[in-house]
Amino acid sequence: MTTLRIAGGRVLHPDFSVREGDVLVDDESGEILAVGDVADGDATLDAHGCLVMPGLVNAHCHAAMTLLRGYADDKPLESWLREDVWPVEAELTDTDIRAGTELALVELVKAGTTAFADMYFSMPEVAEAVAESGLRARLGHGVVGVGKDEEAARADHEESLDFAREYDGYADGRVRTIYTPHSLTTVDESLLREYVPKAREAGVPLHYHANETRDEVDPIVEERDERPLEYADDLGMVEEDDFVAHGVHSDAREVELLAERGTAVVHCPASNMKLASGAAPIPSYREAGVTVALGTDGAASNNDLDLFDEMRDAAMLGKHAAGDASAVPAEAVVEMATAGGADALGLDAGRIEAGRRADLAVVDFEAAHLTPTHDAVSNLAYATRGSDVRHTICDGEVVMCDREVLTLDEDAVRERAAEHAADLVARAE
Amino acid sequence: MTTLRIAGGRVLHPDFSVREGDVLVDDESGEILAVGDVADGDATLDAHGCLVMPGLVNAHCHAAMTLLRGYADDKPLESWLREDVWPVEAELTDTDIRAGTELALVELVKAGTTAFADMYFSMPEVAEAVAESGLRARLGHGVVGVGKDEEAARADHEESLDFAREYDGYADGRVRTIYTPHSLTTVDESLLREYVPKAREAGVPLHYHANETRDEVDPIVEERDERPLEYADDLGMVEEDDFVAHGVHSDAREVELLAERGTAVVHCPASNMKLASGAAPIPSYREAGVTVALGTDGAASNNDLDLFDEMRDAAMLGKHAAGDASAVPAEAVVEMATAGGADALGLDAGRIEAGRRADLAVVDFEAAHLTPTHDAVSNLAYATRGSDVRHTICDGEVVMCDREVLTLDEDAVRERAAEHAADLVARAE
Repeated sequence: MTTLRIAGGRVLHPDFSVREGDVLVDDESGEILAVGDVADGDATLDAHGCLVMPGLVNAHCHAAMTLLRGYADDKPLESWLREDVWPVEAELTDTDIRAGTELALVELVKAGTTAFADMYFSMPEVAEAVAESGLRARLGHGVVGVGKDEEAARADHEESLDFAREYDGYADGRVRTIYTPHSLTTVDESLLREYVPKAREAGVPLHYHANETRDEVDPIVEERDERPLEYADDLGMVEEDDFVAHGVHSDAREVELLAERGTAVVHCPASNMKLASGAAPIPSYREAGVTVALGTDGAASNNDLDLFDEMRDAAMLGKHAAGDASAVPAEAVVEMATAGGADALGLDAGRIEAGRRADLAVVDFEAAHLTPTHDAVSNLAYATRGSDVRHTICDGEVVMCDREVLTLDEDAVRERAAEHAADLVARAE
Repeated sequence: MTTLRIAGGRVLHPDFSVREGDVLVDDESGEILAVGDVADGDATLDAHGCLVMPGLVNAHCHAAMTLLRGYADDKPLESWLREDVWPVEAELTDTDIRAGTELALVELVKAGTTAFADMYFSMPEVAEAVAESGLRARLGHGVVGVGKDEEAARADHEESLDFAREYDGYADGRVRTIYTPHSLTTVDESLLREYVPKAREAGVPLHYHANETRDEVDPIVEERDERPLEYADDLGMVEEDDFVAHGVHSDAREVELLAERGTAVVHCPASNMKLASGAAPIPSYREAGVTVALGTDGAASNNDLDLFDEMRDAAMLGKHAAGDASAVPAEAVVEMATAGGADALGLDAGRIEAGRRADLAVVDFEAAHLTPTHDAVSNLAYATRGSDVRHTICDGEVVMCDREVLTLDEDAVRERAAEHAADLVARAE
């Protein structure tokens, strides 16, 4: 066992108190050994002037879509998908996805994110990139039935399950998997009835888009005379380890259903605002006891993967939508980005205490925009940016030190991604 | 004449096109001499990999309120002001305000902001801090009548006008002034009738809060049976050089009135969301031809002074409020933060072209979260952060080079502000 002592900073505790103290980490087991007044470590990471917080969790992402950052903005979801995103996605190759995912990984590391959930294609490439980066992820091959005959649709489900079975536990357990039907309107009912039980048999949780837009809710209500999540429940898709993305247009019954089942919701406020999808009822979810996490969604609808932006957006949109400045306070959004995200993804992380996974972000508070510090949690929620993160630690390993990414070659990754992005768009146009 | 060539980057032009080119600046007159293929300069500032854009304009701020960043969050405007902000503000001294303003100036410079409008107290201290910083500002002593007898209220108006007369043109013309009654509900009508004409006589424009919350609108409508801006117009407060802050609850007649008069509106989306004040009708203002600028408001209700955050917030809130993803697009918010702000403040800036003031921000685009660059304007609106600004130039002088502030001692300013903030809060509690 070799140990790392993160020394000289202040620590954000699970009860949101902030106290001076060190964190001792076992870099072999990847566990937090002690917090506060700790023994010397074999190595030391300087945290003077910094706040040591749980690594952030991005619970809904399409990482490789960084290639489409800024490609088509200011358009409604439907035409944006059909006219811009899907035609380009149809051209994506494995190497494009590898390049875009590596770009996302650099961006995540640099903003203190230590775990993320990803739903996309060419997932073995994504898994390898995650392995290389040192981060943690829940990965799933996205299943889309639209425009496919039954054989192709069936193959898509099989690919999703095969990937989930094969890669669960990959990269020393940092990669876990999910079965990811895209949404309730883009995947055929009969195949869901066939494949959801197979996912359960394999012990793989589900992650899918639900209640993102009215356009997605109305057809289900009209056709089936039930709410989308009731339909999902009927398909066996609302269980304890599952987590759904967006949940913007959930009604009171659906909120109650998620609370009863223990299914988490991933709130994506930036994407929901940018695509004018609406405002998720976050106070209702939290009052009902639903676990709420935060997600950036893909970079094409955000346009970054910075969870600090997402915290701020969640608080701001929450207050605006409730017409109440006390709604969705600072502590709530910090919890959503840390413990909430870890719980949604089924990770023993998101809280700094002995025995938990050592997934940490060390934030430099010695900056004009973080001065003074009347309230460190407020500074995290409202004023910190991803660029304030000084060190990122995942599974006990330092993946960024003093803003230098240690696991990936940042410049090479940026150059490769820029080339792939230009080439991809040229092929699609 | 000595000249500075900002070399090797790409330039954001007033028509939002982005082309490779240099910018030649006269650091004595403070003017832009040429753009594109320019002559050698006496000195060179490296802009390889960067986008050269107009310096950002923060058109509504209370700079010294950085001392209260994170002091009291997640509360409605009324109780936040009465229970938290005003009791602390009552304790403010000249040296507190100087310390808080210098902190704000460092934060503004580091985020590429070259001009701001400030309404606060101890304004000679603020003017001296601005002079020292190298930035440009429109400064006004805020007049508040609430809780004052007539003599004290009159003295407040006199102080505002005296400051405005004395400091207009200070710091080589970088300081201009404004007459700043706080709002239409916190200042007595009879004194406005007396002092507004005096401001006009002195050639000093007006800046005040208007239509920020419903609580501010309803009493005026009930008492006078006219809209707040109609009442303001009756007082002679809606003229071409004036600019009003917030304008959240303006109705169609008020939008039309502002358009007719040529009075600008300063949109403060972060403050409006954080205090749950509502969403300003930005598409209506812009369709009617009203100049729209952006402001952060004070750091206590934001909680930073980063105009890049404000651009993103303006686009996001605009789309959400309109229920239309095409509303308030990227170009609109970049215009609001640059040319719109300069026009509101009456500055010959906000556009990169020969003859304009050389107020510039050089943004480093070689970052993961700004890769690829399918659309530089989209990257500015949605993905850039203040920390991406590499150099800041104001009036032809480099005030920040490679992230180092050249005019103020950043560490000393931060330490002094933290001390004043702690001491202030201790006195008030």
